[in-house]
Amino acid sequence: MAISLRKARTIIRKTLEKGREMELKPLSVVVLDAGGHVIAFEREDGAAPGRFAIAHGKAYGSVMLGMAGTAQMQRAEGQAYFMAAVNGVYGGQVIPVPGGVLLRDRKGAVIGAVGVTGDTSDNDAQAALKGIETAGLIGEI
Amino acid sequence: MAISLRKARTIIRKTLEKGREMELKPLSVVVLDAGGHVIAFEREDGAAPGRFAIAHGKAYGSVMLGMAGTAQMQRAEGQAYFMAAVNGVYGGQVIPVPGGVLLRDRKGAVIGAVGVTGDTSDNDAQAALKGIETAGLIGEI
Amino acid sequence: MAISLRKARTIIRKTLEKGREMELKPLSVVVLDAGGHVIAFEREDGAAPGRFAIAHGKAYGSVMLGMAGTAQMQRAEGQAYFMAAVNGVYGGQVIPVPGGVLLRDRKGAVIGAVGVTGDTSDNDAQAALKGIETAGLIGEI
Amino acid sequence: MAISLRKARTIIRKTLEKGREMELKPLSVVVLDAGGHVIAFEREDGAAPGRFAIAHGKAYGSVMLGMAGTAQMQRAEGQAYFMAAVNGVYGGQVIPVPGGVLLRDRKGAVIGAVGVTGDTSDNDAQAALKGIETAGLIGEI
Repeated sequence: MAISLRKARTIIRKTLEKGREMELKPLSVVVLDAGGHVIAFEREDGAAPGRFAIAHGKAYGSVMLGMAGTAQMQRAEGQAYFMAAVNGVYGGQVIPVPGGVLLRDRKGAVIGAVGVTGDTSDNDAQAALKGIETAGLIGEI
Repeated sequence: MAISLRKARTIIRKTLEKGREMELKPLSVVVLDAGGHVIAFEREDGAAPGRFAIAHGKAYGSVMLGMAGTAQMQRAEGQAYFMAAVNGVYGGQVIPVPGGVLLRDRKGAVIGAVGVTGDTSDNDAQAALKGIETAGLIGEI
Repeated sequence: MAISLRKARTIIRKTLEKGREMELKPLSVVVLDAGGHVIAFEREDGAAPGRFAIAHGKAYGSVMLGMAGTAQMQRAEGQAYFMAAVNGVYGGQVIPVPGGVLLRDRKGAVIGAVGVTGDTSDNDAQAALKGIETAGLIGEI
Repeated sequence: MAISLRKARTIIRKTLEKGREMELKPLSVVVLDAGGHVIAFEREDGAAPGRFAIAHGKAYGSVMLGMAGTAQMQRAEGQAYFMAAVNGVYGGQVIPVPGGVLLRDRKGAVIGAVGVTGDTSDNDAQAALKGIETAGLIGEI
């Protein structure tokens, strides 16, 4: 199952709505497909200019490794040189913290990832999860 | 004048609508701010996976040089090594063809750029121009 | 509000004057705009040749993340692999220590950053703050 | 003879004054030392954000090769692959066109370079020459 642009928009809008409901700082949200390529992205007014790269890095690592942000963070904390080396082979494009959320279909297959940044990593992940669920998909934070 | 996320969404939606009206191939559209940083991006279903980088490259060069895609293409055709060198100092992030469209405010100041890719470069630029005008901004193709 | 070249010159001159008053080592000072792009830079006689990159790295990370040098250092000390990863997505252009100072307007919006290097990180930041205040702007170290 | 910050400032100010006198577009001017390292830079209000990299690239190639912009351009036109290869070994940091001006002392030794960008390459070079002469140095365009 591919994520349509329509679904990606829903994920982004609902993530941003959740962020406003939780009174988070301005968020930036990216949706990647199963190949790690960008489908859609939005950065809220007031967010720092460099947020695309952070959101992308969270989601990109999730898709490329098939491992969500929380699991990546655990690996980085236990074996920092491994995640540094992973970043070497992926061109430095991985941000291994929560806010990188895997998208799975009903059978559990990875169909993409969402990357959220702007508030604490945990809040970023919670907002993403809401957006993903509203779109009828399953998220793994 | 900064481009709000709301304006960026309007530019993207109207560009995509114009593309469908013109019966173009699936389009990808990015909106950058005055510093060349991504505000929003959407890739239509059916577009090739690598389209973010192309759309981004068209818009990024436009902002960084203060020169729209058509002018960049003319320079590349007349002095290829110059545009190649420019790409070197900008990290290879510039695609010097139409479809990179400058956004100007009423006083003529550059406030960002739109990058469109998917169909011919000229059609990409025409679709962008429609989206920009609908958002009440001035585009330079 | 954009930082004019005139304002950037004032920031640099007053930062250097403060450095001489505090009897600091030769300083280098950069002023970036809200998109992280260089407006002006000066390196005092006697400073090491590589100081542009250090000054730039302090200011660039501040703008891109919307987080001043002190906050970046705290994050780097608490979660080293995160700041290393952030540097990956920003092309290795971030120096996460004091001396990277955010420039804010009266409403609190980030309008650029100053990067100072040459003495201790804390002295660098204090000199920058003086230059920023003399220019009538608000600095966050 | 080393170029002092005071001399570098004079070069920049006089180059900008000349630019205004010639009614050129907003200019950006960098002064590099004999090792190719930045001493000072200024970007006039209204210049595109990416101008530091262009000014730097013109001056950097001049110092590193000991060959001014005009000579580099001739080489690029006659043997494009050579200048492309030069850019490979210098990390893509060379812009081989006029506006990169060598600074020489009275004995003819290269002591640095000036890079100017914003108008046509030839106008950029003329403005630089004026700034250099006012500073009592010898320029080679």
